[in-house]
Amino acid sequence: MKTSADGSARRTIWATGDGAVEIIDQTRLPHEYATKRLASVEDVAEAIAVMRVRGAPLIGATAAYGMAIAADVDPSDAALALARQILFATRPTAVNLGWALARVADVLASLPLERRAEAAWTEAEAIAAEDIALNGAIGDHGLALIKAAQKARPGETVNVLTHCNAGWLATVGWGTATAPIYKAHAAGIPIHVWVDETRPRNQGASLTAWELAEAGVPHTLIADNAGGHLMQHGRVDLCIVGTDRTAANGDVCNKIGTYLKALAAHDNGVPFYVALPSPTLDLSLQSGRDVPIEERAGTEVTEITGRTADGRIESVCVTTPSTAAANPAFDVTPARLVTGLVTERGVIEPERLREVFGSRA
Amino acid sequence: MKTSADGSARRTIWATGDGAVEIIDQTRLPHEYATKRLASVEDVAEAIAVMRVRGAPLIGATAAYGMAIAADVDPSDAALALARQILFATRPTAVNLGWALARVADVLASLPLERRAEAAWTEAEAIAAEDIALNGAIGDHGLALIKAAQKARPGETVNVLTHCNAGWLATVGWGTATAPIYKAHAAGIPIHVWVDETRPRNQGASLTAWELAEAGVPHTLIADNAGGHLMQHGRVDLCIVGTDRTAANGDVCNKIGTYLKALAAHDNGVPFYVALPSPTLDLSLQSGRDVPIEERAGTEVTEITGRTADGRIESVCVTTPSTAAANPAFDVTPARLVTGLVTERGVIEPERLREVFGSRA
Repeated sequence: MKTSADGSARRTIWATGDGAVEIIDQTRLPHEYATKRLASVEDVAEAIAVMRVRGAPLIGATAAYGMAIAADVDPSDAALALARQILFATRPTAVNLGWALARVADVLASLPLERRAEAAWTEAEAIAAEDIALNGAIGDHGLALIKAAQKARPGETVNVLTHCNAGWLATVGWGTATAPIYKAHAAGIPIHVWVDETRPRNQGASLTAWELAEAGVPHTLIADNAGGHLMQHGRVDLCIVGTDRTAANGDVCNKIGTYLKALAAHDNGVPFYVALPSPTLDLSLQSGRDVPIEERAGTEVTEITGRTADGRIESVCVTTPSTAAANPAFDVTPARLVTGLVTERGVIEPERLREVFGSRA
Repeated sequence: MKTSADGSARRTIWATGDGAVEIIDQTRLPHEYATKRLASVEDVAEAIAVMRVRGAPLIGATAAYGMAIAADVDPSDAALALARQILFATRPTAVNLGWALARVADVLASLPLERRAEAAWTEAEAIAAEDIALNGAIGDHGLALIKAAQKARPGETVNVLTHCNAGWLATVGWGTATAPIYKAHAAGIPIHVWVDETRPRNQGASLTAWELAEAGVPHTLIADNAGGHLMQHGRVDLCIVGTDRTAANGDVCNKIGTYLKALAAHDNGVPFYVALPSPTLDLSLQSGRDVPIEERAGTEVTEITGRTADGRIESVCVTTPSTAAANPAFDVTPARLVTGLVTERGVIEPERLREVFGSRA
């Protein structure tokens, strides 16, 4: 597997050096580790839309590379505007997508045509490298929270619950919610992760569990329904999740179901943390009410893909043909349910977001 | 399909007249409607344990028939005690199981051996018939709640959210949570049901959706994660769920994940009702803390069964082989989150349980 420049983090996307990028095709995990070459804007857009790459930070970085691929082919304003439009239309909720596209486009706008391609690749690389660095810093700040949980119950394993995949697969490297977990595990702190299955796309079962198994971190898969019961019985010390967009008031948009876990954490006095790299912050939105919530196909609920006993990959339908499904992909957790935002600048209360990150508005 | 004596309700279990019963094998739904003959105590115990029959009221009725089958073969005290023990060991959470077994055993204890078999069949039939009558009454009381919701927003469809299957398949007939829904639909009230998938056994997707589709009731399947989001956006008028055991203080034990929906309902001012026939009440328990929570196999989480596009039934694994799963099957919703208990004696506040049903203690 590819790693970051210093070898400390696994990487999900990298430039091939000949005008393309390679990604891990996450639709094939956990059953197969396969990479896929993306050599056109259309390839990149398809990979984001069908979730070969997913996770707000990785969506942003991938889109930035998409702009570089576009600039290689045709660096004209019209061509770049079209590329940006195609890439922006792929998914609506993660703010990193628009943020990364704007960042590359802004750099290129002031440059002559002949310098744009190289500058686009440089900027995409910078976004990717910064993502790894931001997540590493989140890991350090989150590690302090896990250490504090351990101090509260010396000698006991720290039980962390996470929802969806905010792991290294959701970023360029380290992950957001998982960065503190990996750092705690490396520091020898006994840690165990409750992995929410995360229906309907099963990112917990297929991605987070795979990541943790690869890294040797003890973990247990649970149905999304089980987390409240575990919290009622003192079996969760803290929750850490990621976010696709966090509004200025600290409302957190994240994978559907996050809100239910935050309610249960609040009801049981379990700290609920959100790992938030600043590119996922949207200070232009006053509250979470304004986040566009993606509606995905109902077939993602009715049809489930997995591996048969004899190793084939099959999709099966779990309901009756006359039943349709609704599939909102994200929900909004009100700031009042969030104990702290674990950012690259430290752990902050949601209401302090503007104060700490106001300069990014 | 078999129906109740007056033809108004579909029936899930019936005596064959030759010392056996027939059930609908619910493990084959929604892909196939098949009945199965149970002719021995072992058959009955297996059917309950592997969930060919499930749902607290139906578990109780099935166990009662199991005692009748046992009494046919050997009505001695020793044989009946053994049968009762085998049947009681099948599943721990639904109180109806112990209740029905005790009811039949109490009747038989005072009878001479030669009269026991006939009395056991009569008592099992009585339990089954009473279940249909209780649920019919719950339907009438619940119908009033749905009518009130409709009055609050005239001309609009009433949106009900339910979790798991507390439908006619979970009972002998009518269902508990679904009885008001069927009665509202029959009364011409525009009603739509949000059906929680209910991982890991998918009873919502495979049983509730199938029931509603058969009955022509408009419904939409959703991932368990989606209900909170729908409530935040005013898309749920009321929740109705079933229960496997309700304690004297009104704490409700029900399918895992019920607690999370109750939290979301409370947070959004959505009424949260529990359909509770009195045999599901356990006044011997002071609170929900004392309900034994069944832990089922982790493979129910990691392996999902469904129908392939070409019609085969396949099981697929959704995670990596090195990942294990935990599978608590029930959780407890505190009485403070329950708007009302819809019982055969009317809709009552949880704290009035003892007052209304104290005579059953």
